[in-house]
Amino acid sequence: MDNKTVMVKMTVDAWNMLLDRTTKLVDGLTDELLAADSAPGRNSGVYLVGHLAAVSDRLIDMLGGGERLHPEMDEPFLFKPDKSGLPMPTIPELRQSWTDIHAKLQQHILAMTPDEWFGRHSAVSEEEFQKEPHRNKLNVLMSRSLHMSNHLGQLTYLKPGKVSE
Amino acid sequence: MDNKTVMVKMTVDAWNMLLDRTTKLVDGLTDELLAADSAPGRNSGVYLVGHLAAVSDRLIDMLGGGERLHPEMDEPFLFKPDKSGLPMPTIPELRQSWTDIHAKLQQHILAMTPDEWFGRHSAVSEEEFQKEPHRNKLNVLMSRSLHMSNHLGQLTYLKPGKVSE
Repeated sequence: MDNKTVMVKMTVDAWNMLLDRTTKLVDGLTDELLAADSAPGRNSGVYLVGHLAAVSDRLIDMLGGGERLHPEMDEPFLFKPDKSGLPMPTIPELRQSWTDIHAKLQQHILAMTPDEWFGRHSAVSEEEFQKEPHRNKLNVLMSRSLHMSNHLGQLTYLKPGKVSE
Repeated sequence: MDNKTVMVKMTVDAWNMLLDRTTKLVDGLTDELLAADSAPGRNSGVYLVGHLAAVSDRLIDMLGGGERLHPEMDEPFLFKPDKSGLPMPTIPELRQSWTDIHAKLQQHILAMTPDEWFGRHSAVSEEEFQKEPHRNKLNVLMSRSLHMSNHLGQLTYLKPGKVSE
């Protein structure tokens, strides 16, 4: 296995693990638990899941995987904080969006070659990329894994009765 | 910049960013806020910081950076959950350990060459590594960044008055 392939495997494995853990956690929460705040006065489960789903949806486009599925999620879940009063999807709709977005995203991720991963992403110019070759698609995925991990730590607090995690 | 160097930069940059954010957050919390639980019935700030510090301390050894500084932190912060009743360091001692551990760890990380990063870590055998070259030191650092990000999401809840993060 060459170094590029090794590095892609490390980073994609990490993303898959985070996505899998988060999906399992969300699937294991009732609608009622998901609607609750993750801690008093903090983001609700619905907001956190919508926020992560919107970020994944944007990733489809950024990684060159075609059109994103739910641009309407940006406004309530990315541009505005929780409890903005903006209309939100129902919890079944939110669960469906989570599934659809990650089905499309994962299909693209699995199809990408190591050389594609080390190419520039759509938010960096050719000139910038010459000087900063670390601003590639694989780096975007790594940063999205860190982002998901951060909010997964918060989503964990929606599970009843677990003091330590 | 060759590929190995690019990959090391991506992964070390991500770690440095996480460590920097976490350190700034902890430094900005009073002892009183740090002693509080991150959410009702969940881990305290002290436990989360001790937990992350113990994991970083073990990383010194795993990355070949010499002897770790605080093996006594494993018992209360890794092997036991929060509120175990085990003796814990005072908050000033904990802050000092955080500083010392990361000073030693960061000095070693900065000195490591790309080839060292792609070598096996001390918890994987030579035989295993032949078959699974992704189990290298850089992968360990990536997984520690994800771990820190998870608990940083929880530590954020110690900050008063911020609903969204």
